[in-house]
Amino acid sequence: MKKIAILGSTGSIGTQTLDVVRNNSDLEAVSLAAGSNIELLEQQILEFRPNVVSVWKEDKAKELKEKVKHLNVKVLSGMDGLIACAAEKEVSTVLTAVVGMIGIRPVIEAIKAGKDIALANKETLVTAGHLIIPLAKEYGVSLLPVDSEHSAIFQCLQGERQNKIAKILLTASGGPFRGRTRDELKNIQAEDALKHPNWSMGQKITIDSSTMVNKGLEVMEAKWLFDVDYSQIQVVVQPQSIVHSMVEFEDGGVMAQLGTPDMRLPIQYALYYPERRTLPGERLDFYKLSQITFEEPDMDTFRGLHLAYEAGKQGGSIPTVYNAANELAVSMFLKKKISYLEIVDSIEYAMEKHRFIENPSVEQILEAEQETYHNLEEKWKREEE
Amino acid sequence: MKKIAILGSTGSIGTQTLDVVRNNSDLEAVSLAAGSNIELLEQQILEFRPNVVSVWKEDKAKELKEKVKHLNVKVLSGMDGLIACAAEKEVSTVLTAVVGMIGIRPVIEAIKAGKDIALANKETLVTAGHLIIPLAKEYGVSLLPVDSEHSAIFQCLQGERQNKIAKILLTASGGPFRGRTRDELKNIQAEDALKHPNWSMGQKITIDSSTMVNKGLEVMEAKWLFDVDYSQIQVVVQPQSIVHSMVEFEDGGVMAQLGTPDMRLPIQYALYYPERRTLPGERLDFYKLSQITFEEPDMDTFRGLHLAYEAGKQGGSIPTVYNAANELAVSMFLKKKISYLEIVDSIEYAMEKHRFIENPSVEQILEAEQETYHNLEEKWKREEE
Repeated sequence: MKKIAILGSTGSIGTQTLDVVRNNSDLEAVSLAAGSNIELLEQQILEFRPNVVSVWKEDKAKELKEKVKHLNVKVLSGMDGLIACAAEKEVSTVLTAVVGMIGIRPVIEAIKAGKDIALANKETLVTAGHLIIPLAKEYGVSLLPVDSEHSAIFQCLQGERQNKIAKILLTASGGPFRGRTRDELKNIQAEDALKHPNWSMGQKITIDSSTMVNKGLEVMEAKWLFDVDYSQIQVVVQPQSIVHSMVEFEDGGVMAQLGTPDMRLPIQYALYYPERRTLPGERLDFYKLSQITFEEPDMDTFRGLHLAYEAGKQGGSIPTVYNAANELAVSMFLKKKISYLEIVDSIEYAMEKHRFIENPSVEQILEAEQETYHNLEEKWKREEE
Repeated sequence: MKKIAILGSTGSIGTQTLDVVRNNSDLEAVSLAAGSNIELLEQQILEFRPNVVSVWKEDKAKELKEKVKHLNVKVLSGMDGLIACAAEKEVSTVLTAVVGMIGIRPVIEAIKAGKDIALANKETLVTAGHLIIPLAKEYGVSLLPVDSEHSAIFQCLQGERQNKIAKILLTASGGPFRGRTRDELKNIQAEDALKHPNWSMGQKITIDSSTMVNKGLEVMEAKWLFDVDYSQIQVVVQPQSIVHSMVEFEDGGVMAQLGTPDMRLPIQYALYYPERRTLPGERLDFYKLSQITFEEPDMDTFRGLHLAYEAGKQGGSIPTVYNAANELAVSMFLKKKISYLEIVDSIEYAMEKHRFIENPSVEQILEAEQETYHNLEEKWKREEE
């Protein structure tokens, strides 16, 4: 029996992970952590019978505790609860799919407790890769990417450990606004940006995908996961989302991983790695799919991607600023407080405003996040006046 | 220093293999075998200084012997010479790129002498896979495919030994007559068929590529190399020859190998496996290549592919008949003795005419070859009368 923790069990990746658990009788979700959706979490408790659950918001945790008091499940809350779920004794792999930098500490504690990490939380490596990668090495645990792109790259590297990577070809759908000019993006509303052509995902990541900031975060993540330079990471727009990413080696050979847009594949792959299990679902039909196209990303229009390379190359606390600025700006955009183009403008502003820290600790990362929020809020306040 | 034998050194694969030797100072070609092109073989002797060479035709061997008598090289001929080159003491890997069933015996002797086999001769596995595969296992030697498709599949399987193959997706360019009807192929002349859109290859293989008989032989080869059923091998037409082949696993994930059409990659990969070495040359540029398309092969027009599946499923001596009939018919077509469509008609005729042997020995394979030649010659004689 393989016992796992799912951090972010009520989100898109979390529910799909539970679908994988549902299909595999030797997988058990022993701890579940959610943000505030206690209705869904209650259902998950009833179906999957975890030992422990945690709810980010304390009042919601109390409410849930009352509802499930007849069941044999511990209900915790806040960062302590999240960490308890991650470090739960029986767990061998922690799948972390929480959104935001709150994901960093539970991962650190899980690594210290010797758990393998199935990583779907981008912020962990983007902001704290310089701490997480050496820590995972120190404790001898595996970091297994769950993002479809990073999972694809990871799959392409199987059996290739002795071979140097020439280039990572990180594919991108290009999002719903591919091919448009900056001018045409001025009046984009949340409703427009929330329609992703291929993948069904959470709200924030769908906006991030439309601005290509998501791809930018993935570029930074790839840098840490695969130990390459930014000059070795090339983003290739592949609008059909069939080629999930590729690796070019020194002999010019390119390995690629392809599949239908089904997140259960990388999830299951990470949980059973290196074994592949049967996964029910649609298969690629090359006779029907007819073509795969490739394009260069338009980094002038989608400046968020360009800024990600900048942030990554500068390193230190700058990727944290990039991420925090985007997170806040997206939430403001969804609340219709700022315009679509202001999302990326905000990232650029925050990056310029920030005071660089070379090798930030977790505390300094979280401070940089707060500083970024503060800088942007001040800016928006001034603009309102 | 890695010492290799090259059987078929003056052919297309042979000369490209010597190009790889030229680029790698730790590779040495210690034995070279050629058919009849002694002018080129003499140049190769001067450049690569092998210990031993062999020429298929005895008179040509004598001629060469005279020319290189001042050099320290043994000159042999015929099957004995071919086998001596393959089993040469210092050799660790035999790259076999001879054309035809004369390739079988040298491979068997090389395996028995403990050499790894880099396999570019299709007939070896097509006709004698049932003998070669168990023999290689018995002697613990590796069979390393050199064909770009099989090399691609082999690359896709790296790090996947624990995982069952769901399906092999063997790609095909479709050849120069893709999209044409059977009727439109009636008057094809050798000059037309010798133009391959992507690969520069020998004459026979170029014709085989145009009829898709080459792909048929590859289907049978794949069956032996990767231990799958014929129902698990799907031919996918990919006219740009960029995706060299793919493997689908049980989770629906598809691994693919891509590259420019450069045979030096699979040659070098086979010689240094599992290590990839830098290979000078063009790289795939996804921004420029813009698209990859896929099609279902038209097995009604290209009946040779359909017949290959039939031959493979029947097994025993039938693949030998398929191959021998094609070999003879192609040479007759190149001599303008039969029409283009008669190439595949001849295969079908020979397969029907043949008396099946379930588990043929090498002698029986060679007898089946002779019987096939005889049956076809009789047929053509009757038709002339």
